[in-house]
Amino acid sequence: MIGQLVDTKIKLASEAITSIYKTNYFGRPKGDFLELSLVEAAYLVYKNKICIKDETRQLDFNEFFTIASKLQRYFELKYIVYKDLKERGYHLQPSLADFRLYPRGGYPGKSQAKSYIFVSSERELMSLKQLMNNLEMSSNARKQMILAIVDEESDITYYEVKKTHLHGEEKLKKHFTSSNIISTFLEDRVIVWGQENAQYLYNHGFYGNPLDEIRIQLSLIEAAYLLENDLIQVKDRNTNEYMDYVSFKSNAESIEPEFNIKYRVYRDLREKHMVPKTGFKFGTHFRLYRNTCSLENKLHSEYLVHAISLDHIFKLPILSRAVRLANSVRKKMLFAVEYNDSHEYIEVSRIKM
Amino acid sequence: MIGQLVDTKIKLASEAITSIYKTNYFGRPKGDFLELSLVEAAYLVYKNKICIKDETRQLDFNEFFTIASKLQRYFELKYIVYKDLKERGYHLQPSLADFRLYPRGGYPGKSQAKSYIFVSSERELMSLKQLMNNLEMSSNARKQMILAIVDEESDITYYEVKKTHLHGEEKLKKHFTSSNIISTFLEDRVIVWGQENAQYLYNHGFYGNPLDEIRIQLSLIEAAYLLENDLIQVKDRNTNEYMDYVSFKSNAESIEPEFNIKYRVYRDLREKHMVPKTGFKFGTHFRLYRNTCSLENKLHSEYLVHAISLDHIFKLPILSRAVRLANSVRKKMLFAVEYNDSHEYIEVSRIKM
Repeated sequence: MIGQLVDTKIKLASEAITSIYKTNYFGRPKGDFLELSLVEAAYLVYKNKICIKDETRQLDFNEFFTIASKLQRYFELKYIVYKDLKERGYHLQPSLADFRLYPRGGYPGKSQAKSYIFVSSERELMSLKQLMNNLEMSSNARKQMILAIVDEESDITYYEVKKTHLHGEEKLKKHFTSSNIISTFLEDRVIVWGQENAQYLYNHGFYGNPLDEIRIQLSLIEAAYLLENDLIQVKDRNTNEYMDYVSFKSNAESIEPEFNIKYRVYRDLREKHMVPKTGFKFGTHFRLYRNTCSLENKLHSEYLVHAISLDHIFKLPILSRAVRLANSVRKKMLFAVEYNDSHEYIEVSRIKM
Repeated sequence: MIGQLVDTKIKLASEAITSIYKTNYFGRPKGDFLELSLVEAAYLVYKNKICIKDETRQLDFNEFFTIASKLQRYFELKYIVYKDLKERGYHLQPSLADFRLYPRGGYPGKSQAKSYIFVSSERELMSLKQLMNNLEMSSNARKQMILAIVDEESDITYYEVKKTHLHGEEKLKKHFTSSNIISTFLEDRVIVWGQENAQYLYNHGFYGNPLDEIRIQLSLIEAAYLLENDLIQVKDRNTNEYMDYVSFKSNAESIEPEFNIKYRVYRDLREKHMVPKTGFKFGTHFRLYRNTCSLENKLHSEYLVHAISLDHIFKLPILSRAVRLANSVRKKMLFAVEYNDSHEYIEVSRIKM
């Protein structure tokens, strides 16, 4: 069967509607013709199902592939992903997203598409805004959002992107009955000196880390949260006077450039009754526990959380590394975004197709 | 026993030389006195071995700790690391590096120190130059270099830093007898069209990745290397003319900003008979095989390699993530640095003390 290359589409005569569309779900019927995208056509040429002509002559696969690469941006990437999914037994169609994918066993006319596939090269920068737009588009159409990232050697990694709603079980403030807990702001951390107070904070909400049997050290973030909620008092090491929340915060900002964005996420997580601790060992801002019972039982944290601003631009190799590391230690990777005065938690995870 | 705080040292009378230095190796004898650093003194106060006075009165632990934090930059960090290593049973002494550490069972006078410990906060930026200076200093003194990174909650991660010499087993060029292998530079990758040629490149040196049974795709890096060595010919998709190495390279640079630094490392690795492939899935530039036999046997790659320039500044959380990920998939993390017209490969790995 012969297809005619017209602009960026391939047109086949009406018998293709029966033999190619109705039996194998390639292309879209347009009146008397069947219309294929460049990617679909290249795949059918590769499978020896069709031949393609331009105005003058028949094109072999190599010629058509080279022409298509000039006609459509990211043609090769899209072809690589399309071919991979076809060979995994899926039906898929070009769509507003690069492709809409039918569930295993499903096809156009029988079932609804399940997922939108967004194809990208590892080299492309991906803005958080674009990612969130795509997520909203998918969500409005009740589709799963899948990123297909093609690396320089044409290996594909698939990621699912979705919003996560966090609800922890840690009831924190009710524990505290007094704010007579005294601490000192040293160089870049805060020490709670008294044994009873130190153990109290550590055992009720998992604040701080023991310096020894008698004292705990609080991170700047933890100390700011406890101070803002009148749960501790913090002395300046130089003046020995009590610091208010505002001056503490401004000191902390000068020590840690990302203090503010991290702190707002920390506060939001505590208000959601989650227990955030530093995620340094995993290269993220926080690791996250659902409650402190899980600490005592040495259960592991379920999430890693990284706070990013709405104008964040993802470098895909760095995204890849973060998600891969999280998944390798059986945690979910969440990106926390401040959005319309609240926080959204966007989970990115590798999936096998 | 009472120590006197003088400037940034603590002086103890001569009997301390017997009771504190000769039996437990704290401090350094200076004539009739024993001199302790602030960190050593704080630890001995914590252990109730000594008390400390300033000009006017005796200081309790909390007072002395706060004063020491004002007298010495990074005092808290150093104390946290010192205490951790003491409690693991090591002897250590202040030194040009933050500490020199004796091997387990060793102590001053009995054995040589084994390692230099460099203490840093996760928040500090660490320049590659500083890292390499410290590595050279350690190496000149025949010491192992250890970074002790303290996170915001005062957990410590220890990293060993060392140079690695790579010698692969892949004899590459001898395989090639002809350069009649034709390929096309498409949008951002290169396709080798003929089945025989494609399989030849794939099987002899593990170049490229199959597009299908007949064709392979080369990354820009791979194609540049093969082109520079006259092992393939590359056509421009627009003009259909052969490209020379210089024009190919300038095209590749415009597509991939890091092309040049990556390419020089790639070439160096191939010349060392190693087999580099993309490390995208691990968030690094390359994964590295010692030979291609290991590919056929599905053995895994031993190294991840990231090319960095000599003016690189490490963010420690990002370093932490890279090393953690590499180690979690049983690979070694190497940073490739161009240095005096050759490349140094610096291995950073987490160690348990």
